[in-house]
Amino acid sequence: MSVFLPPIMKFQLTARDPKSHARTGILETGHGPIQTPIFMPVGTAGSVKAVHQRELEYDIQAQIILGNTYHLYLRPGTELLEKAGGLHKFNGWSKPLLTDSGGYQVYSLGANRKIKDDGVTFKSHIDGSKHLFTPEGVMDIQRTIGADIIMAFDECTPYPCDYKYARNSMALTHQWLKRCVDRVNSTEPKYGYEQALFPIVQGSVYKDLREQSAEFIASQKQWGNAIGGLSVGEPHEDMYAMTSLVCGILPADKPRYLMGVGTPENILECIALGIDMFDCVMPTRNARNGMLFTAEGIINIRNEKWKDDLSPIDAALGGYASTFYSKAYLRHLVINKEILGAQIASIHNLTFYLWLVKEARLKIAEGTFSTWKDEMVQKVKRRL
Amino acid sequence: MSVFLPPIMKFQLTARDPKSHARTGILETGHGPIQTPIFMPVGTAGSVKAVHQRELEYDIQAQIILGNTYHLYLRPGTELLEKAGGLHKFNGWSKPLLTDSGGYQVYSLGANRKIKDDGVTFKSHIDGSKHLFTPEGVMDIQRTIGADIIMAFDECTPYPCDYKYARNSMALTHQWLKRCVDRVNSTEPKYGYEQALFPIVQGSVYKDLREQSAEFIASQKQWGNAIGGLSVGEPHEDMYAMTSLVCGILPADKPRYLMGVGTPENILECIALGIDMFDCVMPTRNARNGMLFTAEGIINIRNEKWKDDLSPIDAALGGYASTFYSKAYLRHLVINKEILGAQIASIHNLTFYLWLVKEARLKIAEGTFSTWKDEMVQKVKRRL
Repeated sequence: MSVFLPPIMKFQLTARDPKSHARTGILETGHGPIQTPIFMPVGTAGSVKAVHQRELEYDIQAQIILGNTYHLYLRPGTELLEKAGGLHKFNGWSKPLLTDSGGYQVYSLGANRKIKDDGVTFKSHIDGSKHLFTPEGVMDIQRTIGADIIMAFDECTPYPCDYKYARNSMALTHQWLKRCVDRVNSTEPKYGYEQALFPIVQGSVYKDLREQSAEFIASQKQWGNAIGGLSVGEPHEDMYAMTSLVCGILPADKPRYLMGVGTPENILECIALGIDMFDCVMPTRNARNGMLFTAEGIINIRNEKWKDDLSPIDAALGGYASTFYSKAYLRHLVINKEILGAQIASIHNLTFYLWLVKEARLKIAEGTFSTWKDEMVQKVKRRL
Repeated sequence: MSVFLPPIMKFQLTARDPKSHARTGILETGHGPIQTPIFMPVGTAGSVKAVHQRELEYDIQAQIILGNTYHLYLRPGTELLEKAGGLHKFNGWSKPLLTDSGGYQVYSLGANRKIKDDGVTFKSHIDGSKHLFTPEGVMDIQRTIGADIIMAFDECTPYPCDYKYARNSMALTHQWLKRCVDRVNSTEPKYGYEQALFPIVQGSVYKDLREQSAEFIASQKQWGNAIGGLSVGEPHEDMYAMTSLVCGILPADKPRYLMGVGTPENILECIALGIDMFDCVMPTRNARNGMLFTAEGIINIRNEKWKDDLSPIDAALGGYASTFYSKAYLRHLVINKEILGAQIASIHNLTFYLWLVKEARLKIAEGTFSTWKDEMVQKVKRRL
């Protein structure tokens, strides 16, 4: 087997918006470049729900997708993933991949997990079996999954969260980060390409904690940095305030990833604050419920008003699903619980999200982002 | 609007197997040619479940698909279908289309339908609303759906069925056929292309009734002829005996369509008896349960034995789903109830069915069908 020697991850800023903190860049990985700002479709268990891999690449034009360490660890498990040569080989996605550390999923387990200094013990949601996630273990699992970008193991605080809990949790996340960094530095990637560690800023909605966390995270000098613990139920104003604060502290020459965000409006606003990367299950989850995001606003396709509408789902976007099928046909499928309805709506919503960040990149490059963003925010949040 | 003048449906036999009644042919329709023997994927409510229209055309290489009059009449309804310009325009399938008459679905409703001389009253499975299907009404509905091949309104007898019921039912089907023919002859297609009526032979598993019915159906001199009321629970030997008997009576220069059949083995055996067209929900329904048909035999992908099998689903077939994804990945998806699992399995099974009839056509043309068929039957029915 020949050894493939990729470039070490590199991030190059290519344009800045004069009226906001928005910027464009190119992030190089062992599986090719990513143009930022970018939205990353979520493929929880190694599949972006209802979407084929070639549809992700050619129709949706996704540049990077997510996998979830918690889910992939339980199924198909690290043994099979290693045998396959990593998740890329297992599911056939040949572009960049990022894995979440499992911190968020473990936090979501509630009573079925116990957080200790060493790590987290939890019961599988599948069969109730007991497992232990430590910072070291989670780095090893992500080495085996083989993502290009791997996330530090953190505790994601809930909302609301009292100050003391948030402070202690942040301290634990920082302590775990050092162990993650040590583990990554003392191990090698398994499949011949680099894996870049992104640490995660926590601190709930407390300014002083967020500042302290952002400074600590920045001091670790990793390839990129993430903001976690937002979009968990707090008001949008808090999300924007914390994001703005943290973006001012995280280094400008590294990509900034806002985890689990969000609506099209959230994404546009946070691009303006200096965020480069986003992920969210909303476009696919809402698609399966018949909620469509379009360039003109939000459509509930189950609504009677679309019954006779034979126009394309969203001709502005291009792409197969959005232009080939009509609203009336999609409504018919969704009402009849046809699987194809979930497929079309999922491809459409992801096509829209990728279109939105592509348009944002173009507007930033042109220097017209801020005006466009203000207009677009009004459009994308209205209900049609 | 310019008027499109298509050729009237034409069927040309192109080869005959010297050792069986198998034959190849080309059936010309207003939406292009169909090479026979052919398998027709079932798109009950205007969608072949879990499969995009372009996947049907380019991956599966389907040449004609089915729609169901009963389902399409209830939803989306004839008003919307007429507004769209027919089902082809509504769902974007631009190749030939056949609609079932609803006879089979109405028969399946059991206690919720009442058969009278005039027609059938039934309650919708969706909302319990009452409807009447008459031979004339069903022809009008099929005119509005706009299929290239439309089926006569028949009564599909259950199995087992006593002789007297089968005889009376057959008489009713014949009486209704005359009304169907009259209606089709006295009305025009709505969208500028011909619609060919296929009558249906009934008679349960009684030889004299099947002979009588086949002779009556043949006397109607329609564009093609169908055999109904089989594959409803009778032993395979009865299915083959009735099919053989009826094929000997139906004219050789018209396509013969065996409705609702069947397994790969059934299809191969019935091609040998002189059948040209097949449809069945089995490839898609079984796919959704994780049962795969391959050139080497039947796979239950949920089985532990496929867990680590990183080989393609079925490299022999070509096509995206069957060669891009591995058995282990598909198993992972199916076990995790991922929608993509149903999608891949559905495309794969249909690709296999279309591959099987394509191979049959090649073997008939080469004059090697019978030997190949005997070998293939042994392969396709074994469990791997």
